[in-house]
Formats: sequence, C-alpha cells, structure tokens
Amino acid sequence: MDRDTLRALLAAVQCGERDPDEALEELARLPFVDTGHARVDTHRALRNGIPEVIFGMGKSADQVIGIARTLQDGGQPVLATRIAPDVAALVRRALPEAEYDAEARLLWLGPAEPPLVGRGTIAVVAAGTADLPVAWEAAGVARRLGNKVELLVDVGVAGLHRLLASSELLRGARVLIVVAGMEGALPSVVGGLVDKPVIAVPTSVGYGASFGGLSALLGMLTSCASNVTVVNIDNGFGAAYVASLINRL
Amino acid sequence: MDRDTLRALLAAVQCGERDPDEALEELARLPFVDTGHARVDTHRALRNGIPEVIFGMGKSADQVIGIARTLQDGGQPVLATRIAPDVAALVRRALPEAEYDAEARLLWLGPAEPPLVGRGTIAVVAAGTADLPVAWEAAGVARRLGNKVELLVDVGVAGLHRLLASSELLRGARVLIVVAGMEGALPSVVGGLVDKPVIAVPTSVGYGASFGGLSALLGMLTSCASNVTVVNIDNGFGAAYVASLINRL
Amino acid sequence: MDRDTLRALLAAVQCGERDPDEALEELARLPFVDTGHARVDTHRALRNGIPEVIFGMGKSADQVIGIARTLQDGGQPVLATRIAPDVAALVRRALPEAEYDAEARLLWLGPAEPPLVGRGTIAVVAAGTADLPVAWEAAGVARRLGNKVELLVDVGVAGLHRLLASSELLRGARVLIVVAGMEGALPSVVGGLVDKPVIAVPTSVGYGASFGGLSALLGMLTSCASNVTVVNIDNGFGAAYVASLINRL
Amino acid sequence: MDRDTLRALLAAVQCGERDPDEALEELARLPFVDTGHARVDTHRALRNGIPEVIFGMGKSADQVIGIARTLQDGGQPVLATRIAPDVAALVRRALPEAEYDAEARLLWLGPAEPPLVGRGTIAVVAAGTADLPVAWEAAGVARRLGNKVELLVDVGVAGLHRLLASSELLRGARVLIVVAGMEGALPSVVGGLVDKPVIAVPTSVGYGASFGGLSALLGMLTSCASNVTVVNIDNGFGAAYVASLINRL
Amino acid sequence: MDRDTLRALLAAVQCGERDPDEALEELARLPFVDTGHARVDTHRALRNGIPEVIFGMGKSADQVIGIARTLQDGGQPVLATRIAPDVAALVRRALPEAEYDAEARLLWLGPAEPPLVGRGTIAVVAAGTADLPVAWEAAGVARRLGNKVELLVDVGVAGLHRLLASSELLRGARVLIVVAGMEGALPSVVGGLVDKPVIAVPTSVGYGASFGGLSALLGMLTSCASNVTVVNIDNGFGAAYVASLINRL
Amino acid sequence: MDRDTLRALLAAVQCGERDPDEALEELARLPFVDTGHARVDTHRALRNGIPEVIFGMGKSADQVIGIARTLQDGGQPVLATRIAPDVAALVRRALPEAEYDAEARLLWLGPAEPPLVGRGTIAVVAAGTADLPVAWEAAGVARRLGNKVELLVDVGVAGLHRLLASSELLRGARVLIVVAGMEGALPSVVGGLVDKPVIAVPTSVGYGASFGGLSALLGMLTSCASNVTVVNIDNGFGAAYVASLINRL
Amino acid sequence: MDRDTLRALLAAVQCGERDPDEALEELARLPFVDTGHARVDTHRALRNGIPEVIFGMGKSADQVIGIARTLQDGGQPVLATRIAPDVAALVRRALPEAEYDAEARLLWLGPAEPPLVGRGTIAVVAAGTADLPVAWEAAGVARRLGNKVELLVDVGVAGLHRLLASSELLRGARVLIVVAGMEGALPSVVGGLVDKPVIAVPTSVGYGASFGGLSALLGMLTSCASNVTVVNIDNGFGAAYVASLINRL
Amino acid sequence: MDRDTLRALLAAVQCGERDPDEALEELARLPFVDTGHARVDTHRALRNGIPEVIFGMGKSADQVIGIARTLQDGGQPVLATRIAPDVAALVRRALPEAEYDAEARLLWLGPAEPPLVGRGTIAVVAAGTADLPVAWEAAGVARRLGNKVELLVDVGVAGLHRLLASSELLRGARVLIVVAGMEGALPSVVGGLVDKPVIAVPTSVGYGASFGGLSALLGMLTSCASNVTVVNIDNGFGAAYVASLINRL
Repeated sequence: MDRDTLRALLAAVQCGERDPDEALEELARLPFVDTGHARVDTHRALRNGIPEVIFGMGKSADQVIGIARTLQDGGQPVLATRIAPDVAALVRRALPEAEYDAEARLLWLGPAEPPLVGRGTIAVVAAGTADLPVAWEAAGVARRLGNKVELLVDVGVAGLHRLLASSELLRGARVLIVVAGMEGALPSVVGGLVDKPVIAVPTSVGYGASFGGLSALLGMLTSCASNVTVVNIDNGFGAAYVASLINRL
Repeated sequence: MDRDTLRALLAAVQCGERDPDEALEELARLPFVDTGHARVDTHRALRNGIPEVIFGMGKSADQVIGIARTLQDGGQPVLATRIAPDVAALVRRALPEAEYDAEARLLWLGPAEPPLVGRGTIAVVAAGTADLPVAWEAAGVARRLGNKVELLVDVGVAGLHRLLASSELLRGARVLIVVAGMEGALPSVVGGLVDKPVIAVPTSVGYGASFGGLSALLGMLTSCASNVTVVNIDNGFGAAYVASLINRL
Repeated sequence: MDRDTLRALLAAVQCGERDPDEALEELARLPFVDTGHARVDTHRALRNGIPEVIFGMGKSADQVIGIARTLQDGGQPVLATRIAPDVAALVRRALPEAEYDAEARLLWLGPAEPPLVGRGTIAVVAAGTADLPVAWEAAGVARRLGNKVELLVDVGVAGLHRLLASSELLRGARVLIVVAGMEGALPSVVGGLVDKPVIAVPTSVGYGASFGGLSALLGMLTSCASNVTVVNIDNGFGAAYVASLINRL
Repeated sequence: MDRDTLRALLAAVQCGERDPDEALEELARLPFVDTGHARVDTHRALRNGIPEVIFGMGKSADQVIGIARTLQDGGQPVLATRIAPDVAALVRRALPEAEYDAEARLLWLGPAEPPLVGRGTIAVVAAGTADLPVAWEAAGVARRLGNKVELLVDVGVAGLHRLLASSELLRGARVLIVVAGMEGALPSVVGGLVDKPVIAVPTSVGYGASFGGLSALLGMLTSCASNVTVVNIDNGFGAAYVASLINRL
Repeated sequence: MDRDTLRALLAAVQCGERDPDEALEELARLPFVDTGHARVDTHRALRNGIPEVIFGMGKSADQVIGIARTLQDGGQPVLATRIAPDVAALVRRALPEAEYDAEARLLWLGPAEPPLVGRGTIAVVAAGTADLPVAWEAAGVARRLGNKVELLVDVGVAGLHRLLASSELLRGARVLIVVAGMEGALPSVVGGLVDKPVIAVPTSVGYGASFGGLSALLGMLTSCASNVTVVNIDNGFGAAYVASLINRL
Repeated sequence: MDRDTLRALLAAVQCGERDPDEALEELARLPFVDTGHARVDTHRALRNGIPEVIFGMGKSADQVIGIARTLQDGGQPVLATRIAPDVAALVRRALPEAEYDAEARLLWLGPAEPPLVGRGTIAVVAAGTADLPVAWEAAGVARRLGNKVELLVDVGVAGLHRLLASSELLRGARVLIVVAGMEGALPSVVGGLVDKPVIAVPTSVGYGASFGGLSALLGMLTSCASNVTVVNIDNGFGAAYVASLINRL
Repeated sequence: MDRDTLRALLAAVQCGERDPDEALEELARLPFVDTGHARVDTHRALRNGIPEVIFGMGKSADQVIGIARTLQDGGQPVLATRIAPDVAALVRRALPEAEYDAEARLLWLGPAEPPLVGRGTIAVVAAGTADLPVAWEAAGVARRLGNKVELLVDVGVAGLHRLLASSELLRGARVLIVVAGMEGALPSVVGGLVDKPVIAVPTSVGYGASFGGLSALLGMLTSCASNVTVVNIDNGFGAAYVASLINRL
Repeated sequence: MDRDTLRALLAAVQCGERDPDEALEELARLPFVDTGHARVDTHRALRNGIPEVIFGMGKSADQVIGIARTLQDGGQPVLATRIAPDVAALVRRALPEAEYDAEARLLWLGPAEPPLVGRGTIAVVAAGTADLPVAWEAAGVARRLGNKVELLVDVGVAGLHRLLASSELLRGARVLIVVAGMEGALPSVVGGLVDKPVIAVPTSVGYGASFGGLSALLGMLTSCASNVTVVNIDNGFGAAYVASLINRL
C-alpha cells in the first residue's frame, strides 16, 4: 500500500468510484493470510523481492507443511531453514517435490537452478571443518536467493598460508560471509584482505571459554577491520539474506 | 603487490633487468610508512578506495598530528574520529586547515564538499536524542566518504506514528544505519519496513539493565528482521564505513 | 487474623469468655495445613480472592495429587501449571474430574466456565509461533481466574502491518500480556499503541545471543515504553496472575 | 487519528469538502512537533490521559527548556525526571514558575496540587535509607500524575517487625511500589502480605556482589510471590507511571 | 606432626636413639595412604575430629568402594555424598553393611546412631518443596557428624505466617542452615529473626532468571542480615560441615 | 515482645489490670524509633546481644549523627563502618567523644577497651597488602564487638613458607576470617590447615580478570576446603559480625 | 618456503634454469593437501618439528581416518585427541595399527616409544581425581611428542601436606602442567614452590558456582604467582603442546 | 632451607654441634623479613634466580620505598611495576639512584645494563598503538630480568602485510609476547607463523563489546593456534616474567 496507491484510492473515493466505508476496509486490509498458528506474509516477495523464509527450528512438520502450502498457493517458492532430517522426511511425504539439503538442513520447493539476480559472487569462508554446517546453510540460502556462491573452507588464521593461497577468490567476491567459531578472528583477517563488505557469522563451535559462541561473537564485534558487520551466533541464514540484498544493489 | 606485478618482476629478473637480491628486497618492501609509534598505511586508498581513518580515542594530539601529516604527505584526505575538543584544538593549532565537527567529534582535512561516490542515499536513523552523538558520527563519516546522507532522529519504537511518518524517507535509502540504545528494538522495526540492508548500531545510552549497551547489542543480534547486521556498541564510524562500501557497489 | 479479630479476641479474654492460654494458642495457630512435604495454604482464597496455584515443575504426580486433594478438601478449585503430559495422566487416574490442557500444560479441577470476576478483557499477544506455549499458559490461567481473554499471535515487530491490523483489539483490552523471545521488542511497540498496563513475558525461545531468554528479558526491562513491567522468563502464569489482580480492581 | 476521524476525513473527501491531496497531507501529518533535536508528542495527553514526561538524564538545560516550552504551548503540564540540581537551576532561570523537588530530582510545571484521578492509594515502600532517592522519584511522579501516595521507608526484610507494624498501611493500598537494593527480597515479602499488584523497583544501591543492582533485579524477577512484576534498575518513574495507569482503572 | 613430636624427634636424634637419615625420612612421611587414583587422608579424624567425607559426584562405584575400604581400614566411619542410586546399589553389594539414604543421596558406614558431639541443635530450613533434596543432604550429613537436627520445610518468604509460626524452633537452634532457590530471600528473613549464625545454601531450583542458582546465590551474598554467610549452590554438605564445626565449639 | 511478655500482657488484660485497647496498642508498638529517614532499632542489643551497626556508605554526616544520637539515647555504644575521613571529621565535630580509625574506616562511640565477650581468639588473615583495608575493618569490628583478635598479613598462597611459619597462630584461633583478592585461594589453603570455621572475604583488589572481586568470590565459593563459608566482596564487617556470633557460643 | 629457498628460486630464474611462469606456480603452491573437507598440513612437521595433531571433537570416524591417512602418506606419525571410544573403534577397524588410550581419549599411529626430544621432565599435576581425564590427556600428548613425563594426582590445596610431600618431584621438572577445577588454586601454590614455567589448565569439573570451569579459569588468570600462564578450560592438549615446545628449547 | 641443609642441620644436632631447641628455632625461621605492612622475601633471588618484583598498583610511595630498601639491604636489585609518575617522583626523592621509565611505568634500582642471562631473544609484539603501554611494560621487565628484547608495534591482523613484513624477526625469537586488545586475534596469527611458545597478553584497550579486555581474553583462550598461553588482562609483567623463565632454560 504505497503512496501512489493511496492517492489513487482517495481519488476513486472523490470521484465516487469507491465508497468511503469500502475504502476504509481496504485501508485496514493487510497483505497476509492468517492460518491459525501463523500469519503468513504472501505479499512479501512483492515488497522485498525476496520470499518469506520459514525458520524451521522448533516447528513441527505439520506447521512447516501448512506454511509451505500457503506460500505455494501465493505462487512463491518455499525455503525453510534448520529442518532436521526427520522433519524433512515428513514434509517430503506431504510435498514430494521438496528438495532436502541435509548438510545445510535446508528444504526447498522451487526451481533447481534459481535464476541469478545477484550481480556478483558471494564468497562464503569457513575457518574450520566444524564450522561447515553453518557455512553450508549460508551458501545454500544464498544460492536459492539467486546468487553465485564460492565456498572456501578450513582456512583458519593460525595457518595463514592456506588463506593467502585463496586471496584471489576472496578479492573477486562482491560480498563475503565469514564463518568462524572459537576466537572468531577470521573476519578480521579476511576484512583486511578485501575492500568489500564482510558479514561475520560466529558459530557455537568450541568448548570451554568459547562459551557457546560468545567468544567468537565478541571477537567479531570488536574486529579491528572496519568492513565487518556481525549477525547472531550460527545465523548462516541471516548472513546470506543480507549478502543477497547487498548483491542485488 | 598483485599477481601481475609479481609476474612482471619475475620476468624482469629473468631478462636480467633486475638483480635477484634487488627483487628480493622489493618483495619484502611493503606499502606502509613506519613512523615510530605507528605504521601508517599510505597505499590504503589505492587498495580500498577509502582512505585510512584515524581512530582518535586514546591518542594524543601529537600522535594524531603525526599520522595526519604522513597521510597528507601521501596525498590523502585525513579523517579522524573520537577527537575530544581539547585534542581538536591542539591539532588545529598545528594543522589550521583542519575542520572540527564537535557534535560528531570528527576532524577532517579535505575538500569541504567531498565528491559523491556513493550511488544512493544512506539513511541514518536514531531512536532518541541521547543517541545523537553516535548518529552524528555515522552521518559525518558517511558524508566525508562521499555519500548523500539523510538523518532521522527521535523515532523510538514506542511512538510508531513518528517513525511511520517518515517511511518514505526510509524506503528511499539504499542502505540504512539505525542507532539505538536501551532495548535496541528500532532496527527490527525499521528492518521490517524496508527491503535494504540495515546496519544496527547499539549505543551505551541507558541505565540499569541496559548494562552499557549490552541489552541493545543483544537485542539487535537477535533481531527478528532478516536484513539486520550489527556493529560494536557506539561504533557509528564502522556502520558508516560498511554503508559506504555497500553504497559504492 | 486481622485487627478486628484481634480486638474481639482480646475483648473475649477481658470478659472471661476466653482463657488467656487458649487465646495464646489461637494467636499462634495459622491458616495452613501441614501435609509433611508441603504446607498448603487453605485460607489463601479468603485472603487474596485467588486460590493457591500449584507450580508443577519438578513435582511428582503424588505430590500434585496430595496438594490438590488438600485444596479440594478446603473447598477450593485447583489449578496446576507446568504439568507434563505423563504427570497429567497419572494425576487424572487419581482425580478423573481433572481437566488437562496439554498446549498450556495446565491442570484444572473446577467449573468448566469459571465465573467472570475480571471487569474487562485481558489481551495476550505473542510475537511468534514459538512463543505460543507461554502465551497459552498465560491465557489459560487468566481464563481460570475468571477473566475474558483475547489471544493474538504471530505479530512480530518486523512485520508491523500484522500488528497494526489488530490495534483495535489491543486498544480494547484493560490489561495486556505481551509474550516475546529473541530481542523481546514487542512490548515496547504494543506499549506505545495503548494506554493500559502491559505485562511483558520474555521467553526462552531463540538461539545464540538470545542466551535462553536473557536478551528478551533485558530488552523488556529497558523498554522505552513507560507502561511496561516485566516478569521472569517463560513465566506466563505470573503475568496472568498479576493481570487478573489488575482486572479485578 | 482514530478510526472515526479517518471515516470523517474520507466522507469529507467523498462529498467534495476536502481535496484528496489535502487529505493525503493530513493523513501524513502526525501529532507531534519536530523541534530539531526532538519530536515532542503534543497529543499524548489526549491519547493516554498522561502527559509526556521528559527523561532528563543526559539532556542539557537548553534541551529540557525547549521541550518544556513546546509542551506548555500545547497546554500540557510538564514533568521532568532525573534533573540534576545545576540543570534545574538553569531551567528555573528560564522558567521561573517551575518547581524543583531536589530529593526526587523532579522538575514540575503545573498545579501545586494536581487533581486526584487515581481511585485509591499507591503505597511506596523502600527497604533502606539508601533506596530513598528512587522511592522519592516514584512517590513524586505518582503524586504529580494525580494519585494519593503513602511512603513507608527503612523496612528491610531482616527486621520484619518494622514491616509488620505497617501491614495495615500496606493492605490499604490499591497498588504498591516496592523499592529495594542489595538482595531485593522486600517485594516477595510485601507481595505475600497483600492481594494487590506489586511493582518491584531494584536499585543500584549496594556493593560487591550486588553488581550495580543486578542481584536485586534477579531476585525480584524470580520472586516466589505471584503478584510481583519488575521494572528496570532505579526506574522509580516507570513504576509510578504503571501504578498510575492501574490506579485509574 | 606437631611441634612436640618434632621436638621429641630431634631429641631422639640428639641422644642417638634415632639416626639422622631415619629422622629425615620420618619428617618426609605424611599421614595419607596413596591408593593409585586418590590419596586417602587416614589421619584426618585425628587432626580435625571429623572424618574425611567422600564427594561422590563423578566417582565410579569402584572408586567409592576403594576409598571407603581404606578409610574403614583406618578405623574411621565412612560418609559419602552425592551417591546416585545405581552407584549405591553397587557399593552395597561390596559393602553390605553400608546404609543408603536415597532422599539425601548419602551413603553411610558407621553406627546407626552416631554419638552426639554437637552441643546444641542445628536447624535446617528449606524454602520450598523443590529445595528438599539439598536440605535433606544438609540434615543427613549434620546427623552423621553427631548433631541434633531439626528440619523445617516449605516456609517461603511470600507466606510469612508459615515461617513465623515456627519462630520458636528457629530461635532454639544454635546454628541454622537455610536452603532456598529462586530469589534466595529466606536467609535474610530468618537471619533477622535469630541471633545465631545462619549458613545460607542457594539451590539450583528455579527457571529463567534464576540462572541455575545464580540469583539465589547473589541474593544471599548481598543479604541485609549481618549474620549470614554463604556456601556454593546446592552445597548442603558444606553447610552441614561448617555448622557441625560451629556446634562443637 | 517474646512469648512470656505476651502471656503476661494477656493475663493483665484478663485480670483487668490492662485495658484491651491499651493492650492492642502495646501489641502494635514495636521496639524501634522512627526518626524520619530511618527506623533505628533501639532494642537490638537486647535481642541479639550485639548493637545495631551503622552502615556508613552513602550516608551523610547528618544522617550518621542522627542515628548515632538515637542509639546513644538508648544507652548503646555506637559503631559505624565505611566512614570516609571527611564524614568522620564532621561527625566528630558534633560528637567529639567519637573515636575514628582511619585505616579501618570505623567510627566508635564506646569504651576504649570493650569488655571481652568472645570465648577465644579470632584470627584475621590477609593475603596481600592491598587487602589490608578490608582486613582492618574486620579486625576493628571484631575488637569492638568484644573479641580478642590476631592479625596476620601478606601471606599469599604463592609464598607458602610465610603462611606455614604462622600455622600455630592459625591453629590457635577459634574462628578465622581470611581476606583475599585476585584468585582468592587463601581460604582454601588456610581451611586445610585448621579444623575451625573459616569465613572467607573476597576483596575487590586486583585488575583485569579479577572483575572487581568476582574471581575471588567464585574461587571461595568453590573452595575444596569444607570448612569455608563466604560473605560479600569487601564485607569485612559481615565476616567480623558472624565470627563474633560464633565466638560467643 | 623460507628466505633461502626464495633466493635460490630467484637465482634459478635469473640463470635460466627455471621458467618465470613455473616459478610463479611454485610461489603460489602451498604446503598443504586439500582433501575436500579439510586442508591437511603435510609440511608442518618440517616447519615446527611437531606433527599436526587432529582435534577429534565433533569429527566423524571417516573424517579422522581421512586426515590420518593423508598424514601417514606424508610420512608423519598421527596423534588425535578427544576421540570417543566408539569413534576409536571405527578408526581402528580401518587403521588396525592405531593405538587407543581410552583414559586420555588419544589415538596414536607411531612408534610405541616415541624418541625423547625434550631435554628435561614435564610434571603433570592434578588437583583431584575428577581432573584426571584432562591430566591424562596432557600427559599422553606430552609423551607422544617426545617428553619424559611425571604424573602427580590428588594433591589439592586444602591438603597441603600431600602436595609438599612431592615437592622434590615438582622442583625436578623443567616445565609443569597443573590441572585443577573448582577454585583452581593449585597453580598458584605450585607456582610458588618452583622456579620454572607453570602452565595452568582449568577443568570443567565442579558444580554450582564453578560455572563449567569459569571459576577455575578466572582464578588461574588472576594467580598471584608470577610464573603461571593459562590455557582454555579442559585443554590438556594445548598445555602439553606448549610444554613440549618449551622443553625442546 | 633445602634437603641438604636440613640433613646438615640434623647431622649437627646428632654430633652435638647444635642444640635441639636451637635447631627447632632454625627450622621455624623463614627466609623473609617482616616489615609491618609486608613480608619481603629476601631469599627469592637465591631460590628463583629472579628477584622479587614490587607490584606498585595501589601502593603508596612510602610502601614502595620501604620494600625497596629492604630488598636493597638484601643485596638485590629492585624492580617495581605500575608506578604512577607522582609516586615515582616521591620514590626518587628518597632513592635518587632509582631510574624511572615513564612509558612502561617501571622503577628500577640496579645496573643500567643488566647482565644477559636469557639465551635467546624475546620478541614483544603489539597490535595497535593503544596497546603500547602494556607492551612497554613487558619489554622493560624482560630487559631488566636479563633478556635481549625486540619490540614490534602496530601490526594488527587486519593489515597482514605489516605483520608478514616482520616475519623474520618473529621467527628469530626464542619466546614471543603478543599484546592485543579488542578482538585479541594477533596471538593466533603470530602463533601460526612461528614454532616457539607465544605468551598472549590481552589489553583493556577498546570500547563497547570489548568489555574491558574480556573479548580479547576470551579470544586468546580459544585461540586455534596450539602454541599460545594466556596471562591476565594488561599483565605485561607476568608475560615478561614467564618469558624470562623460558628464555633461561
């Protein structure tokens, strides 16, 4: 309901085409569908250019299926994150065309090759093998949202030669997502090597003083590299979402 | 020292134009000037397109002057953040052409109207009047880095009508910086109104359970809006820096 | 044992109706029943107008049954919270007239339609579907304590249009309970839309930097809306209890 | 801008009384005055029945004066909290009719005896003498918002006889505000003595493990009394504001 | 090896009764038995008057049996805390004379009625039924260490009348152990009622902002009652141990 | 107002010596004097055997003088802790007989040599010179409350020989107060050397990871010595108070 | 690729022995093998003298086997830490020559008696039996890396005589690793007894206020012994690694 | 008092050269001088080869002078850390031969060129100019303790080329001290470049989420480089002390 639509609506009331009470209702009507448990935003793709993504953590298979069907009915592709294998199996029984990416815990109902809408490449960089699930989520989401993605793994800061060997890949990206647990230093180092926005994702990987990702999070927030912003611990989806927005600019 | 330069150097060694020991030195030489206390990166503008910015907190006037002169000698404009009024006065005695923006605590040696290099507008939104210093820093830095900036203040989430009255301004921006203390909820609400990247800056404004900005920081990291990334508490500079990088894409 | 009763007792001693030692005992006797493990407060309904509610977390079915029977013997209805399904099954074997609300984890022995004692409506608002169990607990308790309840769900702050579409419902309530996890911003936004007391309930929903509800809790405590007070994480019962007290005023 | 006003406006457009562009502007115009630094809400008293209160912490005398004058121009009384003595002196030079309550750090422009709008008494209870400034703020705000207030001080839980001696006063209140630092146990005890809502205010009073009010805050959030809700540390204003809302019901 | 023994040893060397190298060895020999995994202190009862107590958490049945046998060989009674039922069953297969108190999770090899060595009564007070396991541990240990114990349960601060009804029992104790979770306010209230040392035991009972006993712990440390000291969360044993030491004075 | 007094009062009512209304008043009257800002407990010495101690932190000289005079009027000696030198000077101008112990920050109005009521010696042990102010407070309070005190300083755990050289002094005490900052390990070591109660006082001495005494506090709470209980950070007074109670047993 | 190799390579280019493009490739080639999931550092033994150690936590048996085989192919011995028994069983099915040390959770493919390269003894000291798994890891790693190791267990600070009885063993070591949970005081005491570097390892052993090893960690960081450095909670491997580096000096 | 001295003493007793009581006294006498406020360890240089260092924080000039004189009387050089300029001036008035290093806040009474006892070089590396005071303390202490020191500054991880340009210096050191604030990532990167022990020193430099050095501390503790150990925040002295011990091996 943007300013132009509002002006048109008011003009229609003025010229008698529309009844005031009817216009009142239209002003009050909102672009979502209330499905009992959740209010599904069917106009989101229109507004944002990016479809609503189902956050699967804590949702039952039935809830996921319900929302997915509503989105499908709205003509949107469906992307769901944090889907455990057993939930995925139940969803695919109801929606057999759904594709499940077990490593990334993503469920997808849409074209196998989503059309590219991003203008450059998104690099997803992971510090260690234990950070891979979060990196896979980020890469998987970025691809489904229409981006070319490069994945670079196991390039921790204590082994710089591994990272420097890939500096061309890093410098070629338009946006970078850097995933790291423990001390979370990788975004600072990568940030110093490139002149593009770096989105840092702390992971809950580690033990002891990593305190479930807190150390990595604090390290990334206090990064001495100026081109680093941060998302929540393990939030590969959020990083990919923002990277997609940037890559469309 | 990129790959092509390296290839050219090696070719020059091969054809006898360059002596290997001389090439060895060149390989070791790096694009910074060591000035005793600090290593000033004079090639940064070449590499990143954005000049090195002096972080003034804890630096003496003499240190700021020294780095500023080195950057000036390298032909770069000079931007310094977190400059207290007394330090600014001392610096301006040595560098009278420096301009001081007391509200934003910024010191600037460069063109009064920096050439626009950003492609759209950066909106800087502040929740309350107490958040203004951080918002001014963000806006001041973004302008000096060549961006058109719109500033919107005192639009807290408990008074939605104030915020909604400016939704056109918000939707017109290419990148948004949202500055808020206390519960830090503004980025979530703004994030839901636009389809562009939102950089959230928690501030240390507040008392009691705001714990020096911790509550705002946590609130922003756990935002339910997917287009929000976060920088350190009070880090208006960092937000402006990343927003500039995005706005140049 | 209020002041009047005390005066009457003393007068009875004066006029010889009561023996001093007997009066001494009466002064020491207190309105609870000691049942070994717990001291059950059978006079509470008299004193507070609200019966004692059993907090079921960590209690065995036997303990719940014991307390419930003591309360029944005192002529009180019985409400128990945080009752897991397996405990509920055992309790209902002993007390078949008990009604179990699995979504809200509530057990109830009393009239199916408790008489309305609240003067207005209590609105229970939940930010996301994951916050529903706590919202159901709040709504279920408020109903059993004699209130008219309206439930509004999935109205997070990043999708304001969903919330604004229900602003009439919000403004019609006499007290509001707002349940939210993650950044916990919903009470601030709701608080700005109404001029009634808002009781905020942080939930442990979330991951990473939500730290088990801590972020939501801190966000609510530092709310910029002046009409918000806060209860413990996941404490739907407490919110409903206070809302009931207010609604009886 | 409520639903009726909207309907009237639309009707006026329909019948040609109002031009659509003019109506568009009216729809966009919002009930606040933008005064540069702050957007002052002049319609708040109309909407909430309670005037906007100036939060003075960190505001200069000039800022306070500016907002106060705007509110006065809107015909509202002015209440400002957390006003330091030196700021108060400056404000009173500009606004000599302002009354300053130094103990409560409150500034007031309005009738010396605000008309009573609350229906009962608000009891403000403070655990120790060090909690008095917060208690005075709460009491002072509640009085200015039109309530009868009773203040009870130095009744810590380690000296129950002092508290019990005042139990009639406690039981006579319609709402209670309980202010305590250190272990913050007083709201639990008071909560057990009354059947009315208790608003707990932790204070930053204490040392060592009181961690600036954190211990009191956590203690109040985990209170075993069901009728307790909590506001931010030292937030006497917020407690009085909510108590006033409740007392008007 | 006290000063007198040392003097005697040196005298024996002087008069030729002892060889210096032999004396050297004696000086180095220490009153414990090294059993591979643990060094069991067999002289402790001599030194402290209280036998070494086995902390069972994390120990296997074999480890418990090994230490218990070494202590038995030294003629000492054996007390083990935090013994899970399955470990207890295994230990009792090896040591059938061991008595197991399942509620208190204590294992005991010694006289059924340990001789009284404490001079007065130790009162163990528990706020709620959920605190009972810790209270039982404290009471069970205190009894085995030779004290008369009174147990008082379900006397939370929100129901003062229950507590006050037992004030004679409280005032009759020589030392008090007060066990409470959630806000941990009970020791402050009990501390105000008696003029004896109160040992406060926070429990991990609770949810949300009780943070595993942290709230109770902080509350007890910042108690406004001067006669309260604190032990670790859930450390019923430690409280009983210190209470026993005091009760022997 | 103990049980016997209550019985006597009731008997007096029965035999007509006392009027019921008069008795009612007496039952309501409580043993404290309300002096406006504070309720001074003048019967405390009767009830506890230990006079009420003024906690001076945050109190003005006038407040201290007021309470001190009330206590003096009640015939009690006066002890005030945490009295800064400037406050002490003002108090002594009003109460010239007051003695000020600047090192311990104690103010005392009472006999220069308080009569000994403790049965043994209280040892106060301080880890480092920086812990001395807290140790002096503990020692000064313990002496004023009628105990023989031995002070042992600069005996940190990293220099065991210094501590072991004083083991006789330690073993000769009836109660021990151990004061330490930084890692707070001294109570564990002392606790292992003696068979008496050890009261551990963490201090805020230290820097970095000592976090204002938190490290010492946590270390003491998790002490492996069973005879250690803990008071708040820097709470030398509380430790001395409890030690006095124990030493009177 | 050290400076000499670089000089030789450049000389070879100069004299025509090497082609520049070929040299370019060599400069770009890095001493690791990319095996899909992980980049295995096969040159590490050459560079550091210590082989790459596999951190087993969170790795599948297949991942361990893959890395182990790559390292074996590079002629290196293989050491893996944090290998659970079930993973070890699977690895040994594939690599039957692997030796599994279940107590230390270490897997080893290499000589049964690794050649001694350390110059002195490494002492591994554990405070309690519950700290043994971490101590065993430290000792097991140190032995495999070529050091003589002495293990001393159950020598907590509350029983100094046990520790002092082993002071010769402590003083004979060239480096010491001290492992402790709970209050973590042992490194301070050991540090005071020796004049060699002490590496402190906090363990997650404990309950309540030990907060998963945080108390021990903070205690060790604030140790009053100057010769103590600290590694992460439960990081026996890291302590052994650094101790080995020191012992080779 | 080592084993040989003890044997000699016992032999002297045996052969009648020494009287037992006299030997008893000698056994009790300990190698420190009690100077009232502090027990100065005059034998430390004999035991550890490193003199006792005065920790100046919180000590008065008089206290420093007293300890310094005692150490001088014992023939030891004197090193004091954390000496503020005003304290230094007072000390130098009493001890004019004392040398004050204002940048490192060190006071030194000893030879201008302490004899080298370390076998190699200690590299001190600082991430930013703000970390310099801590780095200077580390370097200054290491030099006074007899080591060759190389200082490398302003080599943060976001500008790797600056660090890599000095890799020879890094690889040439026998021990490294790495000082960094904010995210504290430098030790991980340096640790990956060398095969020697790295001692990491977090600094309190930073703002916001650096939480006074906590972020740097956590980052260093969770470093992915295996050769890193950590000391307390800002503890340049401790790092230098341990590095000296290692460099003497």
